[in-house]
Amino acid sequence: MSTRDPVDLDAQDPLAHYPRLFHAPRGVIYLDGNSLGPLPRHTPERLREVVTREWGEGLITSWNAAGWMAAPTRIGAKIAPLIGARAHEVLVADSVSVNLAKLIPAALALKPERNVVLTEAGNFPTDVYVIEGALRSSRTSYRLEIAPRTEILDRLTPEVGLLLLTHAHYQSAELYDMAAVTAAAHRMGTLVLWDLSHSTGAVEVDLSNARADFAVGCGYKYLNGGPGAPAFLYVAESHQSAVENPISGWMGHAAPFAFADHYAPAEGVQRFLSGSPAILAHAALEAGVDLYADVDMKTAATKARALGDLFLARVLADAPELERACPPPGALRGGHVALAHPEAESILSQSIAAGVIGDFRPPNMLRYGFSPLTLSYRDVAEAADRLTAVMARRRTQLARSTTL
Amino acid sequence: MSTRDPVDLDAQDPLAHYPRLFHAPRGVIYLDGNSLGPLPRHTPERLREVVTREWGEGLITSWNAAGWMAAPTRIGAKIAPLIGARAHEVLVADSVSVNLAKLIPAALALKPERNVVLTEAGNFPTDVYVIEGALRSSRTSYRLEIAPRTEILDRLTPEVGLLLLTHAHYQSAELYDMAAVTAAAHRMGTLVLWDLSHSTGAVEVDLSNARADFAVGCGYKYLNGGPGAPAFLYVAESHQSAVENPISGWMGHAAPFAFADHYAPAEGVQRFLSGSPAILAHAALEAGVDLYADVDMKTAATKARALGDLFLARVLADAPELERACPPPGALRGGHVALAHPEAESILSQSIAAGVIGDFRPPNMLRYGFSPLTLSYRDVAEAADRLTAVMARRRTQLARSTTL
Repeated sequence: MSTRDPVDLDAQDPLAHYPRLFHAPRGVIYLDGNSLGPLPRHTPERLREVVTREWGEGLITSWNAAGWMAAPTRIGAKIAPLIGARAHEVLVADSVSVNLAKLIPAALALKPERNVVLTEAGNFPTDVYVIEGALRSSRTSYRLEIAPRTEILDRLTPEVGLLLLTHAHYQSAELYDMAAVTAAAHRMGTLVLWDLSHSTGAVEVDLSNARADFAVGCGYKYLNGGPGAPAFLYVAESHQSAVENPISGWMGHAAPFAFADHYAPAEGVQRFLSGSPAILAHAALEAGVDLYADVDMKTAATKARALGDLFLARVLADAPELERACPPPGALRGGHVALAHPEAESILSQSIAAGVIGDFRPPNMLRYGFSPLTLSYRDVAEAADRLTAVMARRRTQLARSTTL
Repeated sequence: MSTRDPVDLDAQDPLAHYPRLFHAPRGVIYLDGNSLGPLPRHTPERLREVVTREWGEGLITSWNAAGWMAAPTRIGAKIAPLIGARAHEVLVADSVSVNLAKLIPAALALKPERNVVLTEAGNFPTDVYVIEGALRSSRTSYRLEIAPRTEILDRLTPEVGLLLLTHAHYQSAELYDMAAVTAAAHRMGTLVLWDLSHSTGAVEVDLSNARADFAVGCGYKYLNGGPGAPAFLYVAESHQSAVENPISGWMGHAAPFAFADHYAPAEGVQRFLSGSPAILAHAALEAGVDLYADVDMKTAATKARALGDLFLARVLADAPELERACPPPGALRGGHVALAHPEAESILSQSIAAGVIGDFRPPNMLRYGFSPLTLSYRDVAEAADRLTAVMARRRTQLARSTTL
């Protein structure tokens, strides 16, 4: 990189025209796209169309005429290139938690002779909670083992049927080497389920190259699909005819409108549908996903990392009391950064008051996310300056109160 | 009733001002609110507010500031009076299928010494499919028994842990006596789960009076919540602290934002949340449900039945080749009527071409639904006239082709 001046970086940014496609509240620099992506400018009009024309005018006929029935596979196919999957391997449905509740039992049933689900200590809680629920209620002799991140590979034994990991850690932004970890698991005969919630749209993901078995991911973060947007799931083609969806609702039936007496699974990934798709939520997600249509994920991931590096470098230099709690500038990382401070919650309030929105994760963590589509380098440099100004004011106040 | 003139009936209808609150495509009489309710006129503006102001401007803060976190319980509390439940017994979440996949294992776990789930032959398929999936994958020795409707009460034995019935049959519109059936099941120590998908908003439901254990229901039919609207579930207060949600995602945790290592269920019905609620879909559902705020369900149910009676009486008199496949005029019935004919699919096409939208259920069934909020008596009389005209044309064409 020839320069670190954000004006020059913006001038060289192949994605420089994207931020203006999103709504930005006046005075706000939004670094929380890793928790809820901002509103794409075209989404309100797309939703209005779906509501007034497709629902209001088309009514029940729109299930076919407006493509509602096909929405889960159509939007899944659009997400596929962002995660290195093939179009027919991805389905939009339900939430990450519900999709985990489908895929975990489905995976364990493929390994009936094993008895351990392995995951990481400090993994995003819903992943662990859903494993706990699935093991409590499933017909299985499996138990849950939780290992520190550094010991995961050592804990892969012939007992482990399923390894469930989050690709980019929700707090530390540490990134697994998906291909290497999946290969290590496969050598042990272990299946791997990747949670891509904090990766999709921000870092490069190549499920096919990694030969990943299963994955889930989130629609409301970097995909900008709206609050509580539907999630997605991925089932490698090689597993699709062997796996069963334990939540075997009618939309995953081979012929939902035949109203047959017994369940027969649809072909392919579609069997992981359960109930009727929430069409309005799907429409907003599709509007968000469509903005990625012409985006090369390598370019986007490079930019996301450069934005985070810029922010980290400035903040760590000018506000050294904030402790880096994520990989250093230049290292591989998820789309966000994490900074630790005993008074993180109060700092976040002041950051938000200064127009820089991030989030707080207890007990002491600040997170700031760097969506490659919604932010410019100038935005991020300005945000870093505002946060360091907040920290400078705190130092002044502390000095003054100590003097008194 | 003093008169059968639809003009007079409209004049006496306490709900006469409701139909104009819904959008009606020009020339269409929509008798398919039992499958997808029409668009309330205020829904597009409500959604626009949620999208542009709450999401666009409020961003992540709207989870609290705009009441997104509370949406599942808030909308549940609004649905509660429509089904005779208490506010804290109803939760909006996911789809009917996913909610069944939570409640069926939860109920069976309360009866570990039993081994039969009983349901009705010809029940709505997803109910049966989800039982099948739950039994295949759950830690249970339960098996599924399917009995004809007339034998359900006789098949209640001490082996039956759970009886799962649909209150209003999706095809025949036959209605169970919820209180009597629940009492019979309870005498045998059997829990009862009612599917209210075809009842809610169209017929009187009194879960409290019936002492029902569990229920699920649909948001996109008579509640006019939009295509694939979120569903709801009901757990009687007496069971709430004893039941476990097998899909134990973070939103049902006692403290979702504490990010604790292990799952601990929230108090009350909220533990049946799994992932993040799809806020845009919830907003549209709430707009639909709000139209019931001042509606007395006894009044609404009486009107729905009177509309269906009017339609049935006219059609059966003037088009006797359509065979009644639902309870007769005057009898208790769900919100729709069913008519059998070997050429039902072709008749439905002509009905739609004549501006009367109903639906076809294989092999030979026409369904027409009578939403008490969206239709006037004149609408329904006109629809009956158009359908009988369709049948008259078919008779003429048949006579002509026979003569040739």
